[in-house]
Order: sequence, then structure tokens, then C-alpha cells
Amino acid sequence: MKIAILLYDRFTALDAVGPYEILARMPDTEVVFTAAKRGPVRADLGSLALTADAALDEVTSADLVLVPGGPGSRVQQEEPEVLDWLRAVDATTTWTTSVCTGSIVLAAAGLLTGRRATTHWFVPQALAAFGAEPVDERVVFDGKYATAAGVSSGIDLALHLVGRIHGAETAQGIQLLTEYDPQPPYAAGSTKTAPPAVVDAVRARFGAVPS
Amino acid sequence: MKIAILLYDRFTALDAVGPYEILARMPDTEVVFTAAKRGPVRADLGSLALTADAALDEVTSADLVLVPGGPGSRVQQEEPEVLDWLRAVDATTTWTTSVCTGSIVLAAAGLLTGRRATTHWFVPQALAAFGAEPVDERVVFDGKYATAAGVSSGIDLALHLVGRIHGAETAQGIQLLTEYDPQPPYAAGSTKTAPPAVVDAVRARFGAVPS
Repeated sequence: MKIAILLYDRFTALDAVGPYEILARMPDTEVVFTAAKRGPVRADLGSLALTADAALDEVTSADLVLVPGGPGSRVQQEEPEVLDWLRAVDATTTWTTSVCTGSIVLAAAGLLTGRRATTHWFVPQALAAFGAEPVDERVVFDGKYATAAGVSSGIDLALHLVGRIHGAETAQGIQLLTEYDPQPPYAAGSTKTAPPAVVDAVRARFGAVPS
Repeated sequence: MKIAILLYDRFTALDAVGPYEILARMPDTEVVFTAAKRGPVRADLGSLALTADAALDEVTSADLVLVPGGPGSRVQQEEPEVLDWLRAVDATTTWTTSVCTGSIVLAAAGLLTGRRATTHWFVPQALAAFGAEPVDERVVFDGKYATAAGVSSGIDLALHLVGRIHGAETAQGIQLLTEYDPQPPYAAGSTKTAPPAVVDAVRARFGAVPS
């Protein structure tokens, strides 16, 4: 199985690395990180770069493609080279997937039109603007299109994918190997559970710093 | 606050990037990825490299140091340059931390002698061999030493750290921003919850492929 993970300037690192850590442990799986050009691609916080081992034009097919989100996704939504690449690769995939605002890039490429999809909780309207149907769930499957909510949700998405591709035992084995037995010290991971003051503070910050 | 994250050949990517994604979002925080030499450092699965922006000798102090785990940690346990660096930086830190088998490297450097610590569930005996007291918990604090269990547990560790450094509201804000509201499709993240056949299969694999 060949997996292609898209990188671009100012992507969010965990969006890509969370699912990578799960998916790359499937049997007989090859992963390639790809970007407009080969070399280091800097994530949104500035202090981390991941290496793209292949340029987009070197990756002409994939069984699974994954698009991470991040502040830089806004630029990708309007980048013909990236949108063309996504459409071309999507024509070859068994699974076309995203994390966070990566789904908005997929939608901008026309791949989610009329489909149920999710994204970061702050921007469902952007999905709708590109013709998708935003769903307030952590992981959403619609046919071969699988989208995850914000940042860390890509880990859950990946376990769902492994389960569908190789069955529950393989997914559980990878979950155990990566010790994914989450015990967050707070229950603040969604707007439904976070204290209202925390939700307001994050909303205010988003308002000030467009992502 | 200056955070140094150690990279080395065959580290596990999520061990480093999970906590990075949380810690780097603290206010007034600067993160540097560091390795024996500058440049790309390949993770354990071969298909991903992270960039070290500084060589170890360029990082002479840190408020927080984090050591990820991975199969390559075995080599690091016997690498005088790395152990010397950890001892020197530890003398300057407020927090010395690890994920997965990263704690075994800290222990090998003599930093966990007599201290409670955790590591990946498969290798507590390695911690004990270096004089630490293995504890079967996901996140363990002993003074300024904070260790996390396997791979994904670094996210929980990081939220604990943000809570201690900046208080619950800041930690909750970062949790909401990264939408860390885990919903794994299986309850297989620990040997206590995974089906026995899955535990046996992973144990057999570890036995065959030393990590």
C-alpha cells in the first residue's frame, strides 16, 4: 500500500505525524511525504521542519492520500498545482483523507462536493463554502473520503482506517504498540466540554490571528 | 522559555511531535530541535525525517529538555556525547522530560537514579537496570523529572507540563486548539485493556525485532 502525505509551508505538524505514526505501521506499507518541491518544509510554529522526500510531480498515484491542516492551508486552497495534484491522485486512491483544515483543501479541489466531512471546530463554514456538508464529528467517512476534526484527531482517523483496511486486530496491535490509551489531564478538547471561558479565549485568539 | 527536543537516528516521530505540538503553543516559548549534527534526522520507520536546527554543542542550556524514544534509543544509551550533553543541559533545566524509551536514555545518563519514572510498557526492566524505579503509569513526575509511557503518551505529558508551568486555563486552551478530545475506536492502548491475543502478538513482535 502506498501512502502519500502532503506537506506545505505552515502545515500543522501533528496533523501529519499523528496519522503517519499509525498508518506507517500497517503491514506492506510505504509512505512518502511530498510537497511542491523536495526538501525541508517548515510547520506553522516555525521551529520544526519535516522533509519532503518527493516533489508532487514524482507522486502520480497513491492508495491513500492524506492532507494535513494548518494556517498554510489557506494558501493551498488557491494553489492550482496542489489542487490539480489532489484531483489527479484522488483518481487513483482507495482512500482520500484529511486532518483539520486539510479537508478544506480537498473541498477546494472539488473532491468533497455534496459529501459529509469534518474539519477543525472553528471553520465548518469554510467547508460549506466549498460545497461540502460539515458534520460536527471527530471522524467522518463518506465513501472513500475520510476526514478528521482538529489536529490530534488524525490519530483516531488513522486507527479507523487501519481497522477498515486490515481489520480490528491489526489496528489494536498498532494502538497497543503506540500506547494510545489517552489520559488527558483536562476534559477541554471540544467546545462541548471545555470551560466556557477557555472556549471564548480561543475563539478570540482565532479571530485575531486568522488560521 | 527555551525548550530543547533531542533527535537521533531512528527516534519515534510521534514521541517528539506530540509534545512539541502542545508545548510549542505555550506563550513566550522557543523550541529548538537538536541532534549530534544539524540537518535531517530520520525517524524509525524510515519514511520521515525531522530537521535538527542546531547541533548539540550549540544548545548549552534549556528550561525544558525532552528526549523522545524509539528503537534508536538503544544506541543513545551508550553514546557519551549524548549522555554528557544531557547531564550538562539537565544542570540548567527546570524540567527534564522524556517519552517512551527516552527515559532509558535519561536513566543511562544517571539522571533518574532512585527516581520514579515510566517508559514504554515493554521495557520497564531497562529503566530498573539503570537504577530508576519503574512505575506503571502513563505520566510520572518525580521532582523536575517528568516521564511519559509509550509514544502517544507524550501528548498527555505535555498537557500536564503546561498546566504546571502556566496553569489549567492555558493548558485547556491548547487542548481545545489542538482538539485533543480522544475517541479511539478501540480500547486497546494498554496491556490492561487490549484483547489478550493482541497483547501476545505485539509481545512476539517485540521479541523478534528488538526495539
